[in-house]
Amino acid sequence: MTDQLPPDVIAQLTALGPEITAELAQASWALLTPFHEKAGYTAPRIDRDLTYGDDPRHRLDVHTAGDDETGKPVFVYVHGGGFVRGDKHTPGSPAYDLVGAWAVRHGYVGVTMTYRLAPEHTWPSGPQDVAAAVRWLKQHIAGYGGDPGKIVLAGNSAGAVHVASFVAGQGGADPTTVAAAAMLSGIYVIREPEPGTPEHVYYGPNPGPQVSPVPRLLDSPVPLLFSVAERDPHMFQREAARLVSAWQHQHGTVPELVWVEGHNHMSAIGSLTVDEAALGTALARFVERHTSTTKETAR
Amino acid sequence: MTDQLPPDVIAQLTALGPEITAELAQASWALLTPFHEKAGYTAPRIDRDLTYGDDPRHRLDVHTAGDDETGKPVFVYVHGGGFVRGDKHTPGSPAYDLVGAWAVRHGYVGVTMTYRLAPEHTWPSGPQDVAAAVRWLKQHIAGYGGDPGKIVLAGNSAGAVHVASFVAGQGGADPTTVAAAAMLSGIYVIREPEPGTPEHVYYGPNPGPQVSPVPRLLDSPVPLLFSVAERDPHMFQREAARLVSAWQHQHGTVPELVWVEGHNHMSAIGSLTVDEAALGTALARFVERHTSTTKETAR
Repeated sequence: MTDQLPPDVIAQLTALGPEITAELAQASWALLTPFHEKAGYTAPRIDRDLTYGDDPRHRLDVHTAGDDETGKPVFVYVHGGGFVRGDKHTPGSPAYDLVGAWAVRHGYVGVTMTYRLAPEHTWPSGPQDVAAAVRWLKQHIAGYGGDPGKIVLAGNSAGAVHVASFVAGQGGADPTTVAAAAMLSGIYVIREPEPGTPEHVYYGPNPGPQVSPVPRLLDSPVPLLFSVAERDPHMFQREAARLVSAWQHQHGTVPELVWVEGHNHMSAIGSLTVDEAALGTALARFVERHTSTTKETAR
Repeated sequence: MTDQLPPDVIAQLTALGPEITAELAQASWALLTPFHEKAGYTAPRIDRDLTYGDDPRHRLDVHTAGDDETGKPVFVYVHGGGFVRGDKHTPGSPAYDLVGAWAVRHGYVGVTMTYRLAPEHTWPSGPQDVAAAVRWLKQHIAGYGGDPGKIVLAGNSAGAVHVASFVAGQGGADPTTVAAAAMLSGIYVIREPEPGTPEHVYYGPNPGPQVSPVPRLLDSPVPLLFSVAERDPHMFQREAARLVSAWQHQHGTVPELVWVEGHNHMSAIGSLTVDEAALGTALARFVERHTSTTKETAR
């Protein structure tokens, strides 16, 4: 793993606008991909398209070292895409096999999953699918060397919202079946969505307060990590600031928040492996702290 | 440098109460000191007690590699101690030669400074002394291999307040003479201090709004980093949360905030070198980003 990207690459990333566009995605991945190609973004073994439910989007890939070790932490990545798009795997690109490879490099089993999309599937399909994937992993991941008591969820953007919703109990499952959860560039309080926004498509025009992960997220016994990218759009920055404020009011403390230096909404997850100092180091420390003893027997 | 402390040491640190007491300091340093003794906390060369002003507390130590390189970033550490105590150097202990040694390991010149103390010296003696030290460094640090255009301030606790006050212009000097400033576990809005508190001694019973670093801190063109330790007392956590909120209202963004995993108010600065993932990695990245081109000629 490379501790840091060269300063000129960070400067080029930082110079990109924060707005989430196809151009931002393209420019960000163009800067990052050569580093991922050099580092390698494919785990020694990938079992693809395992089905955790009936929908064609109920699929996950399991990334492993190909060794015989058991009892490993299980790092589950839930991709973003504004509730309406995105995938666990774009062939020929590091998105998001790189996350599985990062997990394997750190000694975990990596899991990348898809979920049902709006407009066909609306809230709470996201947390329901996270719950279904967790149920599947509890039953099957030991066969891949993972410890079903050491499942750590990590969602990005809309995926962070689904993870937050799962932790808040919206998936119809007990959230304490996971060891920890990370929410990268998420939103935590759903207000009246404006027509044309992704939230409007997924939540509908008049969602009630029950769709918001906050306040129940604040009461969760599950250890939580949040991140915001330096160049995230203002909406995500505002959500992070409001979360810090609500958390401090509730607990008297600041939540674990990682400020992802130099990165934008598209590049932050791409910092794993090639720019560990930005996010990966803190994320791995979080995973290891909360999986250092198995929680399966205690629950 | 050691990337991380062993998990059992972090667990012991986290188990200590957050209250700032002599016992907390003793217990924290007892855990950290063996690691510093192993890593070494003394730079190859230390020039001690250089005087930057007339008061006996106007002294600083310069930590260097003993080589002939020039143009290095200059990392200036302003210790804490509740405005009424503390020193740059406790003989026989890593406090705070370790900060100078850390700076030298990263390729900087390290500076550890003292300043005048309350109750004899009250606000704005702190930012005045920071300004006087910066003036001295501008004139003399090239002789130690430092670049006077690459001075980065880092204050801890009361030292963070003095740095914040300097950045807010309370030192009677132009704050943009420094390249960047880091505030570790500081307070940013001074309210009506309660009798018996350190703030009461330093600011007096009825300080006006002009003593608070915020709001002027929010407008500064100087790049800023803030940190809060996981186990900082609630007062410091509240200050960090309020800073995030005020910053987001002003700029639409979240400031660079480092959540120092596993550490308390006394141990966070002691994480440098022996637990780089907690704070040092982010701090060094900040220093290097903002000193990668000299700013002397531009100002």
